[in-house]
Amino acid sequence: MKSEIIAVGSEMLTPFRQDTNSLYLTEQLNSLGISVAFKTVVGDRRKDLVSAIKTALTRTDVLILMGGLGPTEDDLTREAVADALSLTLRRDAAQVAALHARAATWRITMPPNNLKQADVLDGAIVLPNPNGSAPGQWLDVTFSGFRKLVMLLPGPPHECRPLFDAECLSRLRAVAPLRSIAVRTLKAAMIPESQADKLLAPIYSTYADVETTLLAHAGDLQITLICSKPTAEAAQARVDELAERIEVALEDWFYSSEGDTLEQIVLYYLGLRQATLAVAESCTGGLIAQRITSVPGASRSFLGGVVVYSDELKTDFAGVPADLIAQYGAVSAEVAKALAEGIRARTGATIGLGVTGIAGPTGATESKPVGLVHIAVSDAQGTDAIDRTFRGDRIRVREWASQFALDLVRRRLM
Amino acid sequence: MKSEIIAVGSEMLTPFRQDTNSLYLTEQLNSLGISVAFKTVVGDRRKDLVSAIKTALTRTDVLILMGGLGPTEDDLTREAVADALSLTLRRDAAQVAALHARAATWRITMPPNNLKQADVLDGAIVLPNPNGSAPGQWLDVTFSGFRKLVMLLPGPPHECRPLFDAECLSRLRAVAPLRSIAVRTLKAAMIPESQADKLLAPIYSTYADVETTLLAHAGDLQITLICSKPTAEAAQARVDELAERIEVALEDWFYSSEGDTLEQIVLYYLGLRQATLAVAESCTGGLIAQRITSVPGASRSFLGGVVVYSDELKTDFAGVPADLIAQYGAVSAEVAKALAEGIRARTGATIGLGVTGIAGPTGATESKPVGLVHIAVSDAQGTDAIDRTFRGDRIRVREWASQFALDLVRRRLM
Repeated sequence: MKSEIIAVGSEMLTPFRQDTNSLYLTEQLNSLGISVAFKTVVGDRRKDLVSAIKTALTRTDVLILMGGLGPTEDDLTREAVADALSLTLRRDAAQVAALHARAATWRITMPPNNLKQADVLDGAIVLPNPNGSAPGQWLDVTFSGFRKLVMLLPGPPHECRPLFDAECLSRLRAVAPLRSIAVRTLKAAMIPESQADKLLAPIYSTYADVETTLLAHAGDLQITLICSKPTAEAAQARVDELAERIEVALEDWFYSSEGDTLEQIVLYYLGLRQATLAVAESCTGGLIAQRITSVPGASRSFLGGVVVYSDELKTDFAGVPADLIAQYGAVSAEVAKALAEGIRARTGATIGLGVTGIAGPTGATESKPVGLVHIAVSDAQGTDAIDRTFRGDRIRVREWASQFALDLVRRRLM
Repeated sequence: MKSEIIAVGSEMLTPFRQDTNSLYLTEQLNSLGISVAFKTVVGDRRKDLVSAIKTALTRTDVLILMGGLGPTEDDLTREAVADALSLTLRRDAAQVAALHARAATWRITMPPNNLKQADVLDGAIVLPNPNGSAPGQWLDVTFSGFRKLVMLLPGPPHECRPLFDAECLSRLRAVAPLRSIAVRTLKAAMIPESQADKLLAPIYSTYADVETTLLAHAGDLQITLICSKPTAEAAQARVDELAERIEVALEDWFYSSEGDTLEQIVLYYLGLRQATLAVAESCTGGLIAQRITSVPGASRSFLGGVVVYSDELKTDFAGVPADLIAQYGAVSAEVAKALAEGIRARTGATIGLGVTGIAGPTGATESKPVGLVHIAVSDAQGTDAIDRTFRGDRIRVREWASQFALDLVRRRLM
């Protein structure tokens, strides 16, 4: 069963805004065994919209339209579907009453053009939208002799997604082929992409029935496994078998079999070991602390940290001796170690993390290029420092450095 | 002149990856006065691809295809264009030599299927790709009696974008209608969306020739103005006139007429006043420091900060008296003030910023809900604290709080 998703709205044909609902809908459709064959973005022009709808109906079984259901003149999805399918639009009395009731709740007078939103396509089921004024519509129609399912959904994500889940999923499940889809997301840190591909391609290529996707970003590798089978057990068994082989192949680069983030895993191990962490950051400028504290409950294991851009603050807040900075420079293994040891001593944390480097674009010297980062981890067993030179702009260097630092803490805890 | 962009690749029909090249290409096309009427994503199936290409040729003048030019069996864009336009593909001797030369540079033996990338469509101009092995192609053809321009570009962004700029822009400019487009991006902070719309709609609606887009996210409002005219001067004049009226209407919510980020503006004013900043963050967990230090050159005005999750660290690093925390609680105006004053005193910064709150999902009490944030700014003139309660999940509360805090610093500097 093939589907097409059409995002309606001229704003999505500008350089400034992109459709994101389709990623969510794709996941939900896939879980029903329905593939997405085309995605289209079209502006608020009736002629273009009718053309896009007709094209979609000739090549797919399920058509989902998002957007263009609001009250303005630019909202033309209802009218365009009526044109494409030769259906009439009638103003629905129940919907008119609902719009008036909604306006009354908000204590506002409803502008007359709002009533457009009460227009219902002939034969459509109205899908209630608790998060907005425009309801969705569900059509089960015949087009050129074939059965087609057409859904009209509101565009804003906080309206579109709950409405799809509440109103469309079960209706689609009733007509979708009986297939179950199992999905697993595995994660690994700091493995070079070419190395990952070399290790994994010989394995996953023997699982033709499992769709394997590798996505790498700044030292974080995400491997997604999707398998569709007549039963849930059969799909899950295949995915689990491949997941286990991948986990073994990735050795200690592997860090999660459930799609967790690296910061979640670091906090998980800190909790398991009843350990605490504190960080002293220079070039990452708070990024590591920010990543860790983005996880709910981080305060149980993360004591805090310092962002020490100036040499003075490295001394004041992390106890780095001023003569050490003078001797080796602020970007050095010695200063990274002193940062890690100093923040550990100052906070009483089990583990101290120190990061110093040159994020760029300026600040490089002959011996210290942009991208050079020294990272040190300190605990009761001692302090280790390691350096890497990362390529890319300031944002990328900082992303790589924060990933590498978190991974070193993970390895220390394992 | 209307265009369509087709992104080719099954991976973009998964929930995990999205086309992003089209945003860049849209901006470039718009600058030539060429609008984007449709965007389509299609998988690596020859039949689907041919159907998408034919549809595009019937409804637009310029067709840009991205992806599907690589060496694998799944790379079918050349073949599909040949089918759709009834053109023949010939293996180009010069391209074969180039592929062999490239393999030699990398000291690898070229697999035979790599030669596919030397296949050129009849009548096409080959577009060199310095960043990859597959060249692009440019076609100027007739389809159903109309002139059509078709570009085949590689999919990876670091190949697609430079190739488009180097090879396609000037060729398109030669055939595009003589129009110039002026663009300006204005920014404002912490203005409620409804308020912004009420202030601005009566103004921009009188500029029908300027396309105005408002985008709001976590207290940051971006207003983009686009105008197309026969001359650059005429387009710029209209955009500038509207920009000035918007700037006046937004009063002190307005912070940039050039699309800067709020952290860039804060650093700009700090530099102008020869002032320095230090921050003491609790609930934002390093996010404010991270935003500021993401700007190149931040070290000139930003001394650093502390992330003080525990009560002990609030005392140790920012000098917050323990009995103050005991009396008012860690989330209070008094502690926010003490954080701001303490970090200012400890670092010698001109301005100290203190933030404490409940990011959630846990930690709320009867009198202190999730989303409550106290923010204090301290300088030689004194210390002010203000609180807000932000809605949303942990990530959103932290985004709002960091935006609000940076905006308070901006207002203090103005």
